Amino acid sequence: MIDSLEKLIEEFSKFPGIGKKTAQRMAFYILKERKEEAETLAKAILDVKEKVKYCSICFNITEEDPCVVCKDEKRDRSIICVVEEANDVVALEKTEQYNGLFHVLGGVLSPLDGVGPDDLKIKELLLRLKEKEVKEVILATNPNTEGEATAIYIAKLIKPLGIKVTRIARGLPAGGDLEYADQVTLANAIEGRVEF
Amino acid sequence: MIDSLEKLIEEFSKFPGIGKKTAQRMAFYILKERKEEAETLAKAILDVKEKVKYCSICFNITEEDPCVVCKDEKRDRSIICVVEEANDVVALEKTEQYNGLFHVLGGVLSPLDGVGPDDLKIKELLLRLKEKEVKEVILATNPNTEGEATAIYIAKLIKPLGIKVTRIARGLPAGGDLEYADQVTLANAIEGRVEF
Repeated sequence: MIDSLEKLIEEFSKFPGIGKKTAQRMAFYILKERKEEAETLAKAILDVKEKVKYCSICFNITEEDPCVVCKDEKRDRSIICVVEEANDVVALEKTEQYNGLFHVLGGVLSPLDGVGPDDLKIKELLLRLKEKEVKEVILATNPNTEGEATAIYIAKLIKPLGIKVTRIARGLPAGGDLEYADQVTLANAIEGRVEF
Repeated sequence: MIDSLEKLIEEFSKFPGIGKKTAQRMAFYILKERKEEAETLAKAILDVKEKVKYCSICFNITEEDPCVVCKDEKRDRSIICVVEEANDVVALEKTEQYNGLFHVLGGVLSPLDGVGPDDLKIKELLLRLKEKEVKEVILATNPNTEGEATAIYIAKLIKPLGIKVTRIARGLPAGGDLEYADQVTLANAIEGRVEF
């Protein structure tokens, strides 16, 4: 086989959910496409790594710091929705049901993987809560074991501050993944949130 | 949303069989990976376009001209297997049942898409047949309407030259795609070829 093609197939195979056969199709697609198309793709990949940073307030991904949500004067600054990852923000924003702020933890508590509280942006969340504005924290971690444990851990830290802590409703199927939920289910989950 | 991330998702969505959701997962994977990984991928994409050329004899993809198959002294130079695309060569080579040469047409006759005989490497195939060495041409275009039509067209051109023309056996499911056939089916198809 051809070295550079083999290499490209190997690189594509590294993506989650992309098998050898799909990777091969993708590589042959690149071969067939015009050179400019390949250059545009390569540039887009490098650009993302170059330009995308983390917002210094909410730790969502952004090109400008602070991010558009944190900067937006029309958002309700009395509510913070805590999520695991940046793609959860994308999913929640799509519902158009939530107008508050976000806080991205950057993962979940997972002792087996060696992820403890200090590896997540929990300290930073507590700092944000010291400003008197915040009246409610919505815990929107995934409804699985690690997500629940993380939510319980954070709820215990926030309760003493006298701030209302809520958890998104069990409208989400247990053991599922927030990213894959349909928009109505997600909207229902925000709507029906219950006090922790 | 973030411009550079949107752009990358859009670029990934262009691949065949990659939907919006998969493209999004891929883009977030790039975001999470180390910068060197992203650079390796970008380089692999550019490298393929840079290094991969077409063999001047069989029009298969290659980094050196002529390609490894055409250069290989151990291959049987009396048989040429005609295929539509370079990935068909990959599929046939995997069977390890064929030891002759290849000829890649670069497509199939398709009047609806405006692809005529001059758009394929048919003239170049006939030139190769002028050398007295070739005793058999195996037509291994896909077993669908366009592939059959292309095979019939080429067979008609070769017959007057007094060279044996064969078609891979109907072991392949009709309407299928050569690339997706399992190796045993492909090997059977080469084994059971019948005179055109």
